[in-house]
Amino acid sequence: MTLTVAQLSESELLARIFPRLHAGSSMLLGPGDDAAIIATPDGRTVISIDTQVQDKDFRLLWPNGSTSNGYDVGWKAAAQNLSDINAMGAVATAMVISLTLPRTTPVTWVEQLAEGLSAATVALGAPQCSIAGGDLSGGNELVITVAVTGSLEGLAPVLRSGAQVGDQIAVCGNMGRSAAGWALYESSILPSAHTPEQAAAAALFARPEPPLTAGPAAARAGATAMMDISDGLLRDASRIATASKVSLDLEGTVVRELARGLEGCAVELSQDPLSWVLTGGEDHGLLSTFPAAATLPEGFLRIGSVVSMDAAGPAVTLDGQYFKSAGDGALGWDHFAV
Amino acid sequence: MTLTVAQLSESELLARIFPRLHAGSSMLLGPGDDAAIIATPDGRTVISIDTQVQDKDFRLLWPNGSTSNGYDVGWKAAAQNLSDINAMGAVATAMVISLTLPRTTPVTWVEQLAEGLSAATVALGAPQCSIAGGDLSGGNELVITVAVTGSLEGLAPVLRSGAQVGDQIAVCGNMGRSAAGWALYESSILPSAHTPEQAAAAALFARPEPPLTAGPAAARAGATAMMDISDGLLRDASRIATASKVSLDLEGTVVRELARGLEGCAVELSQDPLSWVLTGGEDHGLLSTFPAAATLPEGFLRIGSVVSMDAAGPAVTLDGQYFKSAGDGALGWDHFAV
Repeated sequence: MTLTVAQLSESELLARIFPRLHAGSSMLLGPGDDAAIIATPDGRTVISIDTQVQDKDFRLLWPNGSTSNGYDVGWKAAAQNLSDINAMGAVATAMVISLTLPRTTPVTWVEQLAEGLSAATVALGAPQCSIAGGDLSGGNELVITVAVTGSLEGLAPVLRSGAQVGDQIAVCGNMGRSAAGWALYESSILPSAHTPEQAAAAALFARPEPPLTAGPAAARAGATAMMDISDGLLRDASRIATASKVSLDLEGTVVRELARGLEGCAVELSQDPLSWVLTGGEDHGLLSTFPAAATLPEGFLRIGSVVSMDAAGPAVTLDGQYFKSAGDGALGWDHFAV
Repeated sequence: MTLTVAQLSESELLARIFPRLHAGSSMLLGPGDDAAIIATPDGRTVISIDTQVQDKDFRLLWPNGSTSNGYDVGWKAAAQNLSDINAMGAVATAMVISLTLPRTTPVTWVEQLAEGLSAATVALGAPQCSIAGGDLSGGNELVITVAVTGSLEGLAPVLRSGAQVGDQIAVCGNMGRSAAGWALYESSILPSAHTPEQAAAAALFARPEPPLTAGPAAARAGATAMMDISDGLLRDASRIATASKVSLDLEGTVVRELARGLEGCAVELSQDPLSWVLTGGEDHGLLSTFPAAATLPEGFLRIGSVVSMDAAGPAVTLDGQYFKSAGDGALGWDHFAV
């Protein structure tokens, strides 16, 4: 019989979780007291919080027969939170985790979650970051919330509001690959039938790989605006446009070239890989703007330029053609949309 | 018809939440970017996280006809998180909030939640603390997670592990009054029939009042160990005993005197007010130990002394009589207990 969380006391469950949590160099006091303490020598702390809800943000069993185990859910929770710190040009220092667990949750699932959180933190390039503590609650559905802190290491933060007319627009990381993986998970194509390219996309959907050292590198290279692409290129570009009061013009040749790299995944799915590149989230790549004269840091690809907004206000265009007004949420992910 | 969160876009809902969030002096960058930035000049950041789940940690409608509105839930979420920072001897600097909301949640409920979070932060004595941002998710039940950071303001943190044999034990804040209020909520006594004393207890259960300036005051007065009482005096005392490898002996006269103050609430309920004092959580008072020669800060009441543990290990006793071994979770709150 599977051991469930309801069969352990809270302290017994914590005793299984704590040894699996990564302690980085930032940790001054780890889990076990009323709060943890982390080193923040910069004098400014970057902070964000993000939640994954069962059957909204992940499924335990997917239509194509794939499963998401605790390791995958933990990896993804770490990746998307660490990405928010990266998007400010900062280096992650700590995560605290809150778990809401149904009584039937297997203890091994929770242990795997802790292992996935820790593995992602180290593998994605944030070994200095400590998993500093957390909270356990009972509930009817799995909810995993991670709050993350970061250090600007003496640099200015890179906000969404700093893009200037004439800047080049660049991206770093995977573009649309996680969306391709999601489409495969939601399809009827069994994982055993995946081509290597499909398997790679599915793996990136399960365990995203945000480019965690690229954010501080962009800050050092003079990035004027930056955010991570979590709700889709178009939607997130429109946020930079709105915050910076400019328009963003993307180059069709580059965007279509990115889409061509996903054609092998689109076969059998009757989907347009271009829509994955334009509206797919969860790769947690970076969308940045740099002065025209700046040399892009390694891993960044130029995809367009910042232009003046016209009378209609901030917009995102492709080769000068209107997509839509910025701020309209239809092309991307909305947590309360049907 | 009630406007629900499903009828607004995420950005429309955020536009209603943001203006209701308190911005304290710690705020360097507020909500709206990938992350917020708070001032942490001490070089160390205290951090904790805590979650409230509908029908586990609160009900929208209680057996006695009381309701918990968003304001109450927001107040309580702030209070219990700020208390964790207080319990380290630190001053709160920021909170970030994650809300998981069913589609049917009224928009006014969410607005009230933001107002309750902000009101508690200011009223309880943490006006410097900023509500720096958050995250919205859809789900089947309401889940409110708050992560909180704090500053030690140059002092050493007060841990659970520092109690020394010979120290005096002291408490600060309400003791068992929230438990009395909870018992009333769970009873059949209508709120309209409450005596003033019962109404006061019910109000403290709905909106706890942790003594938020007492933690740093205790640190300055030389407190050797401290935690907030969230799971009951006995259970939390056993945690200090275990962490400090000592036993804690409570004075029966003081504990019974605390219980006598709750007798008016116990009338009609056939409950023992002593059990509220010994096992009631959620007042979020402080349990501290001080050197025998220390002058207790204002608001602290001496309730016992730290003694050597005997062969049975760390324990909590009342007038030298054994309650139970420390570490045994039966006398207090366990999130996965039936």
